[in-house]
Amino acid sequence: MADINAIAKQFVDYYYQIFSSDRKNLAPLYRDHSMLTFESQQFQGTNSIIEKIASLPFTSIQHQVSTMDAQPAATDKASMIVLVTGQLITGDESNPLSFSQTFHLIPENGSYYVFNDIFRLILAG
Amino acid sequence: MADINAIAKQFVDYYYQIFSSDRKNLAPLYRDHSMLTFESQQFQGTNSIIEKIASLPFTSIQHQVSTMDAQPAATDKASMIVLVTGQLITGDESNPLSFSQTFHLIPENGSYYVFNDIFRLILAG
Repeated sequence: MADINAIAKQFVDYYYQIFSSDRKNLAPLYRDHSMLTFESQQFQGTNSIIEKIASLPFTSIQHQVSTMDAQPAATDKASMIVLVTGQLITGDESNPLSFSQTFHLIPENGSYYVFNDIFRLILAG
Repeated sequence: MADINAIAKQFVDYYYQIFSSDRKNLAPLYRDHSMLTFESQQFQGTNSIIEKIASLPFTSIQHQVSTMDAQPAATDKASMIVLVTGQLITGDESNPLSFSQTFHLIPENGSYYVFNDIFRLILAG
């Protein structure tokens, strides 16, 4: 599973880089059957997902990845599950917020798109 | 996606209940192509996964679930992705430890088995 971690890292780095620069440009990474659960709110389809992501009230945002683990999600194709944990650094909050995010990535035309996306902030116990 | 959250909750509650009572009894929930990534260590197959889980150095352990989100993982079958966040309460540590865990559950004979299992402790920043 070494290769898959490298591919997942490349995707996740790219995803969070676009998230920091211009969140609307994440649209090509979703499809109309893609799903986002953001802090228990559910969205389906590229438009609905991007509308939610773009509306998040951060003037600036950076995902600092602490851990990232990937596994093949099927025996018959190159899809993968990725669990990311890390810190969210925003321009509006002085304290970083812990988060966990799960992606289910599906291969298409030599690249990947996000089929499932589940995001949760981790509140201090 | 309301129903799927109820099914996922039932599975996760059952899984953690067995985890607390006798971890070896989790074996029927995995298959030989199942994968576990536990704190970056990778295991494949029921035997290898159960050996790892059974060897964890906790005399007693309880998963307290804070959040649980599920999504359908495919358009053509009832598989699902679940992200759990919560606290791990062990008999050996006085402080609860935050964890995040992702399951990819596959339907089989009216029930589900774990295809992907990724577990991470969340260390305080």
